Amino acid sequence: MRIARFEHQGQLHYGIVDDDGDGEAELVKLFGDPIVGVIEPLDERVPLAEARLLAPVIPRSKVVAFGRNYAEHARELGNEVPDAPMMFLKPNTSVIGPDHPIVLPRQSQHVEHEVELAVVIGKVARNVPASDADDVIFGYTVANDVTARDLQASDGQWGRAKGFDSFCPIGPWIETEFDPSSGVIGAKVNGETRQLGDLDRMERTVARLVEFASSVFTLLPGDVLLTGTPAGVGPLVAGDEVVCAIEGIGALANPVVAAP
Amino acid sequence: MRIARFEHQGQLHYGIVDDDGDGEAELVKLFGDPIVGVIEPLDERVPLAEARLLAPVIPRSKVVAFGRNYAEHARELGNEVPDAPMMFLKPNTSVIGPDHPIVLPRQSQHVEHEVELAVVIGKVARNVPASDADDVIFGYTVANDVTARDLQASDGQWGRAKGFDSFCPIGPWIETEFDPSSGVIGAKVNGETRQLGDLDRMERTVARLVEFASSVFTLLPGDVLLTGTPAGVGPLVAGDEVVCAIEGIGALANPVVAAP
Repeated sequence: MRIARFEHQGQLHYGIVDDDGDGEAELVKLFGDPIVGVIEPLDERVPLAEARLLAPVIPRSKVVAFGRNYAEHARELGNEVPDAPMMFLKPNTSVIGPDHPIVLPRQSQHVEHEVELAVVIGKVARNVPASDADDVIFGYTVANDVTARDLQASDGQWGRAKGFDSFCPIGPWIETEFDPSSGVIGAKVNGETRQLGDLDRMERTVARLVEFASSVFTLLPGDVLLTGTPAGVGPLVAGDEVVCAIEGIGALANPVVAAP
Repeated sequence: MRIARFEHQGQLHYGIVDDDGDGEAELVKLFGDPIVGVIEPLDERVPLAEARLLAPVIPRSKVVAFGRNYAEHARELGNEVPDAPMMFLKPNTSVIGPDHPIVLPRQSQHVEHEVELAVVIGKVARNVPASDADDVIFGYTVANDVTARDLQASDGQWGRAKGFDSFCPIGPWIETEFDPSSGVIGAKVNGETRQLGDLDRMERTVARLVEFASSVFTLLPGDVLLTGTPAGVGPLVAGDEVVCAIEGIGALANPVVAAP
């Protein structure tokens, strides 16, 4: 099931994407927030084409990101896969949705895309063993871990380089029945393939990352885990359109603009 | 004015601390949340001794922390004051209040205290010049930026070492009329002074840190900035009591316990 968050006629809703090929795609409205509550469909439908999709979740607590989880990407930046998962945080103020602009900050001369599988947590989770990780996962979406590569190198800590407003596009919706053990993951800029990999090349599986993160801090419903990026990262400049996609989930497109 | 968040008879409230020496200290209850709303006293009072103080705020978005903002502390760990402020995030799940236990995680053999002045943001803030920083600051409190020093060194990124549940005690209340340009700041463990410094030794002032942070991401009401720690950091072990204090604000005491 695909669950989107959207705006329609000035109101925010969650909805199930009904795109079975039998007529135009629609959104079946849901009661309330299905991530912290239950999935309760209403008897109301909106054509998908009339809705404006939003980030499918804004975490109340944290976006937990993992660095260097694909060996080929670690190598392309001159790094090794770390002994322990390399974990950092992105603020919820960096989250944007499909088609919202990525704003290039004045402080950086070199901003790059990083397509990643995003895991949406559905339950309060603390010390969850990998074997039980599925129980606390609500679903999966696509993310772009946008990074100011120059500041990442000069700052040491990545709070600034990965934390700018608009530096965490996610969407287009949450797929609740996804198998993260394999699947094509890639990013195109202006139609040209830049990143292309497979989820089966992750050094640590989604289940292991949930185990690791939940051994450090309590994960709350709506928290998002970013699971690392495959090789092929590259620059974004004003005027670009970047599309991040994962087979079986969907495609997340964002324009790139200069700071006003 | 000192504003506390507290639990009394099973209910959560904000209140103004009335401790003018004329009788026992009391809390004047406030309507709603004064940080996102207005400061509206009710005609109800609770003896301070009957209330359980809580963290004066749980950020809806982020705890923004700055490393190496006192030269003497940077040097004691073998570091220099960085060219740009070194900014990292702590999750809101790490925040605890006065007297709540700091839990030593099994993953670390070396956890340390770091007393810091905490700035509580009161308005949506983006690109705020230092000269206007006061306009977006709600007030000030005391924080302990608890750190797993061994993991901080081995992980590279500090998401784990500084992100564990209970690793961000704040309190005991928010002082709204504090001048952060000077004042004694210190930490004691089991009554013995460990850290002792003065706010006037910050490399970058509070106003500069607000300017820097708000040039990267939007600060929301209730967000907290930690402004760095003076020299004297040292280990915490189970059974310790650590007291962090700032002249003109108050003292924040927390027991230290082993992971269950």
